[in-house]
Amino acid sequence: MGGYQVDEATAEEIEAERATYGPLAEALRRLNDLSIRTLVGAEQVAEATALLEQAAAVLSAEVDPEPYGVRFSKLVGGGRNWGNSVVGVRNPVAPPLTITHQGGVSSSDFELGAQYEGPPGFVHGGVTALLLDQMLGEAAAATGRPGMTGTLTIRYRKPTPLGRLSAEARVDRVEGIKTYAVGHIAGPDGVCAEAEGVFILPRWARDKDAPRRFE
Amino acid sequence: MGGYQVDEATAEEIEAERATYGPLAEALRRLNDLSIRTLVGAEQVAEATALLEQAAAVLSAEVDPEPYGVRFSKLVGGGRNWGNSVVGVRNPVAPPLTITHQGGVSSSDFELGAQYEGPPGFVHGGVTALLLDQMLGEAAAATGRPGMTGTLTIRYRKPTPLGRLSAEARVDRVEGIKTYAVGHIAGPDGVCAEAEGVFILPRWARDKDAPRRFE
Repeated sequence: MGGYQVDEATAEEIEAERATYGPLAEALRRLNDLSIRTLVGAEQVAEATALLEQAAAVLSAEVDPEPYGVRFSKLVGGGRNWGNSVVGVRNPVAPPLTITHQGGVSSSDFELGAQYEGPPGFVHGGVTALLLDQMLGEAAAATGRPGMTGTLTIRYRKPTPLGRLSAEARVDRVEGIKTYAVGHIAGPDGVCAEAEGVFILPRWARDKDAPRRFE
Repeated sequence: MGGYQVDEATAEEIEAERATYGPLAEALRRLNDLSIRTLVGAEQVAEATALLEQAAAVLSAEVDPEPYGVRFSKLVGGGRNWGNSVVGVRNPVAPPLTITHQGGVSSSDFELGAQYEGPPGFVHGGVTALLLDQMLGEAAAATGRPGMTGTLTIRYRKPTPLGRLSAEARVDRVEGIKTYAVGHIAGPDGVCAEAEGVFILPRWARDKDAPRRFE
């Protein structure tokens, strides 16, 4: 597995990586949507697919055998989880969400298209769960208590429409190694789904004075 | 929204649609993975991105303004939810899962790559929830009790590794309009996460003898 990697990337190198690979992921997000909604016929689809195979050949010339993982620079603050399924800037499966943290609340505004459909016209209930898991986990981490999800519960109040949406999350309470986070996702007509999650503080983070153990 | 659509597609037309658009989605799944793992430099990435933009131009010539929805043919059994985020054959975001139903158990074997990563080397906890929501929903529908998710609870037993995985789901019990389904996702070392979901029978399905109301 990719694991947590520590490197010495400079701010300039990180921005250069973003500038190189970000537009590639953006082009693929547009294509992921077109794959579902295009009405062109077999001949044009074959032409487009041939172009995609050419692009894949170019990108396949040198490939990391591992997934992206999470990378930290000794020189710049913050981790790069650029392969992450929700926020990864290099992951075309991710919408991606940009999550900000202020005053104890983590929030995000975003748009979901045809790729995220479950019931006709509505966001897949599992996509709602996917996004809320990330939101709640980031809210826990933002208070200095990162963790793996222990339990996640989603209550669906009404169907979430595709389109412009927002999400919020915050820490509700802390009990020992457990951080309880809550949040919701909302559409134009208010809250559509609510979430509660329990995040378990990893062993290496339990005693700040102890030597860091990655278990 | 796309809605539930009824058409008169023949078995041959449905297979032709699958043969045309399925390989397009497959090519994009491969590219979604390469977007994260490619190590080629800026020049090659720009070359690949230009090819993707050409492909997007071809596919954009005629586009459905709506998401795919779920389509039923008067002539052939079964719905086509080909835009679905988990099982959609035209959706490159979907792995996609192929789910079979036998002896009251719904099951699926599948592989998850770098696009589905959360913690380094592991499946995103929210992706686990996404897949289990679909598994449980299909298990409920397979017993003749379709429904929108009311509540979904995931208990994470251990991290789910990327790679070859399997999932199972079944109906646990029925209480009035509520169908309780349970399931799990397992890796090479056993069960990684368990799920329970409540699925609410839609009004149009509550009385088989009543005129069908789509509300």
